Amino acid sequence: MDGAQNRFSFAIHATDGPARTGAISTPRGEIRTPAFMPVGTAATVKAMLPGNVRQTGADILLGNTYHLMLRPGAQRIADLGGLHRFMNWNRPILTDSGGFQVMSLADLRKLTEEGVAFRSHVDGSKHMLTPESSMEIQRLLGSDIVMAFDECTPYPATEEVAAESMRLSMRWAKRSKAAFGERPGHALFGIQQGSVFRDLRAESAEKLREIGFDGYAIGGLAVGEGQEAMFFVLDYAPAMLPDDRPRYLMGVGKPSDIVGAVARGVDMFDCVLPSRSGRTAQAFTRRGVVNLRNARHAADPRPLDADCTCPCCTGYSRAYLHHVVKAQEIIASMLLTWHNLHYYQELMSGLREAISRKSLDTFRSRFEADQALGDVEPV
Amino acid sequence: MDGAQNRFSFAIHATDGPARTGAISTPRGEIRTPAFMPVGTAATVKAMLPGNVRQTGADILLGNTYHLMLRPGAQRIADLGGLHRFMNWNRPILTDSGGFQVMSLADLRKLTEEGVAFRSHVDGSKHMLTPESSMEIQRLLGSDIVMAFDECTPYPATEEVAAESMRLSMRWAKRSKAAFGERPGHALFGIQQGSVFRDLRAESAEKLREIGFDGYAIGGLAVGEGQEAMFFVLDYAPAMLPDDRPRYLMGVGKPSDIVGAVARGVDMFDCVLPSRSGRTAQAFTRRGVVNLRNARHAADPRPLDADCTCPCCTGYSRAYLHHVVKAQEIIASMLLTWHNLHYYQELMSGLREAISRKSLDTFRSRFEADQALGDVEPV
Repeated sequence: MDGAQNRFSFAIHATDGPARTGAISTPRGEIRTPAFMPVGTAATVKAMLPGNVRQTGADILLGNTYHLMLRPGAQRIADLGGLHRFMNWNRPILTDSGGFQVMSLADLRKLTEEGVAFRSHVDGSKHMLTPESSMEIQRLLGSDIVMAFDECTPYPATEEVAAESMRLSMRWAKRSKAAFGERPGHALFGIQQGSVFRDLRAESAEKLREIGFDGYAIGGLAVGEGQEAMFFVLDYAPAMLPDDRPRYLMGVGKPSDIVGAVARGVDMFDCVLPSRSGRTAQAFTRRGVVNLRNARHAADPRPLDADCTCPCCTGYSRAYLHHVVKAQEIIASMLLTWHNLHYYQELMSGLREAISRKSLDTFRSRFEADQALGDVEPV
Repeated sequence: MDGAQNRFSFAIHATDGPARTGAISTPRGEIRTPAFMPVGTAATVKAMLPGNVRQTGADILLGNTYHLMLRPGAQRIADLGGLHRFMNWNRPILTDSGGFQVMSLADLRKLTEEGVAFRSHVDGSKHMLTPESSMEIQRLLGSDIVMAFDECTPYPATEEVAAESMRLSMRWAKRSKAAFGERPGHALFGIQQGSVFRDLRAESAEKLREIGFDGYAIGGLAVGEGQEAMFFVLDYAPAMLPDDRPRYLMGVGKPSDIVGAVARGVDMFDCVLPSRSGRTAQAFTRRGVVNLRNARHAADPRPLDADCTCPCCTGYSRAYLHHVVKAQEIIASMLLTWHNLHYYQELMSGLREAISRKSLDTFRSRFEADQALGDVEPV
């Protein structure tokens, strides 16, 4: 590879208001933006083979540092050739820092200036996550996009608590950058915090820009504040971050969250919603969410979504999907996860095309009207 | 379709001792024999998409009448276009009669000359299975190969009990034939009973031949008698059945059972073993069964079977398989089921080729030597 191919870079091809479409180039392939990253927590996107995840249109997956460091262990994965080889996915992988999940999943956690000491929820073993150890673990995993170690400020929080939490995250961001060092072809993203407080978001953005990152995440949202409050923050937060770097809204979200966030200038998303919903009989469609467990589908010969080209919609009736959901068959999770990931990637593709044509407003109106119609009964 | 394509027929292409290789022709496609039929109990081969089952080399699936009549119901499946369309498998399907499973799974069952009255294990509803209702249900499902309704004689049984049970099954076989009627392109198989008693097996075969079927199953084996006792019966039972019709050993079995039964003149098999084992971390290989849960695989970079071309063996290490088994990820069931079904179909393909070349003895010696070697530790 020559130098250019070996670099991490971001190019914006078109804009429509605050919305942008473009591509992130990495040595492992291109990531078309706005991008949705399926979540492969424990080195698998649940109920999917990686080749099939790629078929849905995914350019990049997300892996969870917290889960992987505990099982099977980062050194183990490094010894086996890295996460890409381990899970049989040769395109880009973004790993989170472990900061969010250590606070939500680990036992007996203790947060100090140094980092977070905790016990594994898997086997009770003792561990410590710090900016330095998070960088080392993500390096061992072989992650293409590494996230700075931060504290996701809980919601709701007073302005004082949010400020203190954000400033700790900014000190950790600086330590993350120092520990990451220079790794050509690999990117480090900083994470803006500040909860729903505009001044704190501005202060956080300013500190991140001083340190300098390859991309910038908007953290601390989608934590219970609701869509309206989230959009209120997204009305100003993305513009505080550098224009020429990717902006990543962590852990988001529902299709309408994504559409609204893209319109406000966000480039990247990740969420367990499409895969988790696929395992609980919930399907995303152009006309909203369909619950296949509902008895109204029991004799319905129609596909889940007649306009969808995924294997679930081209091969099976709603009656079949209802049957396998009721019978608790694994194929129910397989087909509905595939459909949901396909739906999300089609949504991203539609958003990219709409921005390219400067017709995002039309796309959004149609999206909202379709969703509002709801699922239609058979005639 | 012209008349020839529309007919059910069986042709033997080569023999090697009692073993035969050939093909069953049906309007939905050819079944190469000896054939292994993966089991799709509730209209799904668990943890597999049907297109992928076909990729393993399967020509035909087995569906369970008992499960399907209770959920989603045979009339429901008929209304939706039949079982093939319902489960997205357009090749041949064999359905059992429900007789075996009603006796092993149903609640409050009562066996009379008429049939078996029982309550559903799913919802407690009352049902009756008779030769006539079994034929009707299998017709509604659209089965290509229909099995006569019988009682699978429990093991062990005294000769008197086995005789009484077998004679009931033979009266039911006659009623099954009458109820089946004439259905061009669809086949009806009779089932030999008689437990481990040679005279009863002979009497049963004689009665079935008098009635006349498109194929003949050997029932009442693989019910706890062990491989030695089973082979003892198979040393004489297949030859009692017509030479020019397929012989089907129901519910069998382990790879070594299949190899031994093919050598004794059996053409068709079905078993849940490869799929069920795939969901409990057991993998079939040339060198015997490998348990991926075992900690010795935790750091092993080798594939499960270096000679295997399935997606599990070409894409993943033993370490990965061990990890996803321990983490109880769905992909563990998906990959190991795929591998096991692939292994079984490769075994059948090897047997067919060996018979064609009249080298079945060599094949068997090598099979047994390889299995005896056991799984090899990394060097």
